[in-house]
Amino acid sequence: MQLGVIGLGRMGQIVVDRVLDAGHDVVAFDLSAEATAAAAEAGAEPADSVADLYERLDAGADEGDDGVRIWLMVPAGDAVDATLDDLEPHLTSDDVVVDGGNSYFEDSVRRAEATDAAYLDCGTSGGPAGADLGFSLMVGGPEWAYEELTPVFDAVATGPAGHDRMGEAGSGHYVKMVHNGVEYALMQAYGEGFELLHEGRYDLDLEAVARTWNNGAVIRSWLLELCEEAFREEGNDLGDVADRVEGGSTGTWTVQEALEQEVPVPLIYQALAERFDSRRERFGRRLASRLRYGFGRHEVPRKDE
Amino acid sequence: MQLGVIGLGRMGQIVVDRVLDAGHDVVAFDLSAEATAAAAEAGAEPADSVADLYERLDAGADEGDDGVRIWLMVPAGDAVDATLDDLEPHLTSDDVVVDGGNSYFEDSVRRAEATDAAYLDCGTSGGPAGADLGFSLMVGGPEWAYEELTPVFDAVATGPAGHDRMGEAGSGHYVKMVHNGVEYALMQAYGEGFELLHEGRYDLDLEAVARTWNNGAVIRSWLLELCEEAFREEGNDLGDVADRVEGGSTGTWTVQEALEQEVPVPLIYQALAERFDSRRERFGRRLASRLRYGFGRHEVPRKDE
Amino acid sequence: MQLGVIGLGRMGQIVVDRVLDAGHDVVAFDLSAEATAAAAEAGAEPADSVADLYERLDAGADEGDDGVRIWLMVPAGDAVDATLDDLEPHLTSDDVVVDGGNSYFEDSVRRAEATDAAYLDCGTSGGPAGADLGFSLMVGGPEWAYEELTPVFDAVATGPAGHDRMGEAGSGHYVKMVHNGVEYALMQAYGEGFELLHEGRYDLDLEAVARTWNNGAVIRSWLLELCEEAFREEGNDLGDVADRVEGGSTGTWTVQEALEQEVPVPLIYQALAERFDSRRERFGRRLASRLRYGFGRHEVPRKDE
Amino acid sequence: MQLGVIGLGRMGQIVVDRVLDAGHDVVAFDLSAEATAAAAEAGAEPADSVADLYERLDAGADEGDDGVRIWLMVPAGDAVDATLDDLEPHLTSDDVVVDGGNSYFEDSVRRAEATDAAYLDCGTSGGPAGADLGFSLMVGGPEWAYEELTPVFDAVATGPAGHDRMGEAGSGHYVKMVHNGVEYALMQAYGEGFELLHEGRYDLDLEAVARTWNNGAVIRSWLLELCEEAFREEGNDLGDVADRVEGGSTGTWTVQEALEQEVPVPLIYQALAERFDSRRERFGRRLASRLRYGFGRHEVPRKDE
Repeated sequence: MQLGVIGLGRMGQIVVDRVLDAGHDVVAFDLSAEATAAAAEAGAEPADSVADLYERLDAGADEGDDGVRIWLMVPAGDAVDATLDDLEPHLTSDDVVVDGGNSYFEDSVRRAEATDAAYLDCGTSGGPAGADLGFSLMVGGPEWAYEELTPVFDAVATGPAGHDRMGEAGSGHYVKMVHNGVEYALMQAYGEGFELLHEGRYDLDLEAVARTWNNGAVIRSWLLELCEEAFREEGNDLGDVADRVEGGSTGTWTVQEALEQEVPVPLIYQALAERFDSRRERFGRRLASRLRYGFGRHEVPRKDE
Repeated sequence: MQLGVIGLGRMGQIVVDRVLDAGHDVVAFDLSAEATAAAAEAGAEPADSVADLYERLDAGADEGDDGVRIWLMVPAGDAVDATLDDLEPHLTSDDVVVDGGNSYFEDSVRRAEATDAAYLDCGTSGGPAGADLGFSLMVGGPEWAYEELTPVFDAVATGPAGHDRMGEAGSGHYVKMVHNGVEYALMQAYGEGFELLHEGRYDLDLEAVARTWNNGAVIRSWLLELCEEAFREEGNDLGDVADRVEGGSTGTWTVQEALEQEVPVPLIYQALAERFDSRRERFGRRLASRLRYGFGRHEVPRKDE
Repeated sequence: MQLGVIGLGRMGQIVVDRVLDAGHDVVAFDLSAEATAAAAEAGAEPADSVADLYERLDAGADEGDDGVRIWLMVPAGDAVDATLDDLEPHLTSDDVVVDGGNSYFEDSVRRAEATDAAYLDCGTSGGPAGADLGFSLMVGGPEWAYEELTPVFDAVATGPAGHDRMGEAGSGHYVKMVHNGVEYALMQAYGEGFELLHEGRYDLDLEAVARTWNNGAVIRSWLLELCEEAFREEGNDLGDVADRVEGGSTGTWTVQEALEQEVPVPLIYQALAERFDSRRERFGRRLASRLRYGFGRHEVPRKDE
Repeated sequence: MQLGVIGLGRMGQIVVDRVLDAGHDVVAFDLSAEATAAAAEAGAEPADSVADLYERLDAGADEGDDGVRIWLMVPAGDAVDATLDDLEPHLTSDDVVVDGGNSYFEDSVRRAEATDAAYLDCGTSGGPAGADLGFSLMVGGPEWAYEELTPVFDAVATGPAGHDRMGEAGSGHYVKMVHNGVEYALMQAYGEGFELLHEGRYDLDLEAVARTWNNGAVIRSWLLELCEEAFREEGNDLGDVADRVEGGSTGTWTVQEALEQEVPVPLIYQALAERFDSRRERFGRRLASRLRYGFGRHEVPRKDE
């Protein structure tokens, strides 16, 4: 099979490598000539532009093979629309476009409706760490297109069990959005546990705790393995890691959708709010502190103290 | 009526003043001679010691008046026990002791059982600001003792409606404990609202918002009047008030009791947790931040950045 | 002054009554002829239609009085747009339209931009219970229009302190939205406190607790007066009031805006989630219960048990 | 090595089996003769009583082997104290007693101080499902005793990496307590995610979602494998599993300790509160619903509706 890959950042490069390793052909393009050259070195056929990539795929298609297959691995948002704008003049209803990025599911629904090609929204989890093991792929879109791309998904995922078609257009990114919401909560839950152990009554070796838990305890998980790694690499006190958690867009989408569906998600909400909290002075708490003076004449801590 | 008052801090002094204003006699004692002198200046009869206070009350009692009445307004905890130790040799079953402080309700139950006197645990709300208006008094203990002290309670409270007997020993401080848990949540709820207004889309005069709300809106309250005052006195940005909320013992008791009773109190818990949060670096969030690197190679903010 | 009022439900009728009581003239219209007739009986001039109402106001305007003033008190959403559609052909830039309903602030911004008239978005709090006391009015829109309507606002509000101009278009409904978010949290906070008292160690008279608190305690408020009333009218166990809390739109808007602004509002969120929770079976908890069997072979409660 | 095992429930039997499989000798006792007989059938030497078990271990000890080793796997609480009372007359400072149950860590500290034997508190995670794989063992107590028992821990755990000495007396059960707190939060976090997927926009096969996530996604874990199993065995709608989550003691201990340490654990708290919530009518929400009538004359849902 032949696959075009547009977007050769860390994740895109892994897709290229895994598809090549599985014995397929890849035509690769990135706005950065350097990234394209790196893909070429890995064995992909380089393209000069989106149009060039399409032509090369089209030319390479066997007779009787009606369409081309393109995997987008560009940043969610405008970059996806810009790439699709470049592709649109070439695309036919026999072609399949996969968006492997972290797009908002409603954008994916809109794009699927707008394009002539079959459009697969593909939530991709596993991060750069998944280079060897493969990713988990949650795919939305037409069944025939999902089936046609199966060899590629087999290569990029952890194997046949690591990818599945979730449902209609948007469902892949929808499931990935919820995945990320859960991820926020899991991270914070482990964080609470280790914070209590760190501040608590015993002088504990947190890496040893994580390792012991990872070998047979109910809460063992990949994230817990990453906790173990974090204590090993940063030390028991986490060195100079700051109390500041970046990110938040997919968690915000999850909470917004939960509001829409009237589904309570207090843990996911709280995990998201903790991120916001870590990034700002809290006006509301400053007011609460001042109110304690208001009714009880308690001393108010001031900023320069 | 004649009342002994032990403990002449801000709150104790208010009790003395209000009882004197109502035409009763007061014998006053504080470990600080200065505080005792101030009470004397206000019209109370000063005592040299707890024993001296008891004797003066006993001597002053009319014939046929069988007991003395003493109001403790000392800090919750050991100071209450120490004062009761000093009183114990003198107390008879005709005497009434009121603990007007913020004692833990189980301590009050224990003290009520230990003493020969009738023991009233009296939750007192309103803060120093209640000097003019009077306090809200939640009283636990024997009915006859509550009734005997009614003239005093009428004087100290906002009037007859500002005090009531809640039930058996400990119930006064129990209701006060829950009052304070609710107080934490109310403060944080107003804080969230004003934080959103402060950070949000419009450039608002928060004192004007609070004033407008206080005049007829559903959420009008005394705490909201204190918000209005805070913005007036500190400015729209709350000046140099720090993001650090002190205190927490009564809130902690409330959550502990709710755990015991298996009653969910998520808002009260969260309001309490916000106080803890404002006073420490969060190890758990530092771990979460490091995990984002673990799976996604996201950059980790470091402390010196 | 002469005011047109469109929408004569419970709240609209109160506006009519209060404006008439203040000595102003009212032209009133409602889709229900009955409601219009009731307003007429109260002293308003009835109109047959939105167009008729406008004409009557226009005719009644003094020479030199350049515009008409209309207060909309119709349900938020389509009804506001429909009414404005009817008014639009008549409106001039000298006219002032007030939307006193619970509109979403972005709708108000849009409507203000779309109309030729000066548009005031007016958050109204106090509920039908405010009939006697007057409302709290949070007004957004052009300053001249706010000033021109001041006599009306004085009449409808609790007095001059009960209304204020918050800022530009939308700010009135924005502040009202946040007001309601805080309201959700306050209600739930009191609910938690009374739940703990109800389930806790003492057999308490909750009406007496609320009354005692309302007389001098830090947490005294109008909502707490309504708690007192609720226990008085429904009984200490709240009779047959169901564990089901309706509503949620303004709370949802508040949380959405807080997500947008990255402001943590965990108490408001939780209060909203409690409403959702009260209205559905929780799939997530069913899963958690089943997981306890998965790892611990704990028995799973089944629905028919 | 020779090990005595007291308590032959599901977990105790697994300990017996795994220790026997590793080639060690086991003397077994349970208050149920049937359970003791089952252990005998599996290859253990049966004992008639706690005293008999001790004697047999003592007799079987090689010359030069100074002490006996006993593993308790009885329900946390009084049963542990009762067993220790029976053992106490026999125990010497050369003996080692392991408490493998879910005891409260402060009880373990107390017991360690009270007994002449070396006392190891051993948090055991993995549940009956860990029969084949082995458990995760978190051990507190004297280092020499932990080292002496290492062959047994190797057998019962997943291997050397599945057990570790956390620190002094109590630390094993302390770490296990926090493990369980985290477990509550993880379960609820997955529950929220699947609830949103179940109620959300797409008609999803939740088993397929869980399987896809378990193969390479960031949130893969053993609990997520149990989710997959739950959907496979109960169906996509979880059949007749009730919205009622039992248990809560270790989660309660975790929150209590976090209050003591002033460490915020909002996710763990909320997960615990959800369990309480699933088991009771919420008085607080009933009050909130009634308040909506109080200020807004909103209709109040009644129980028989």
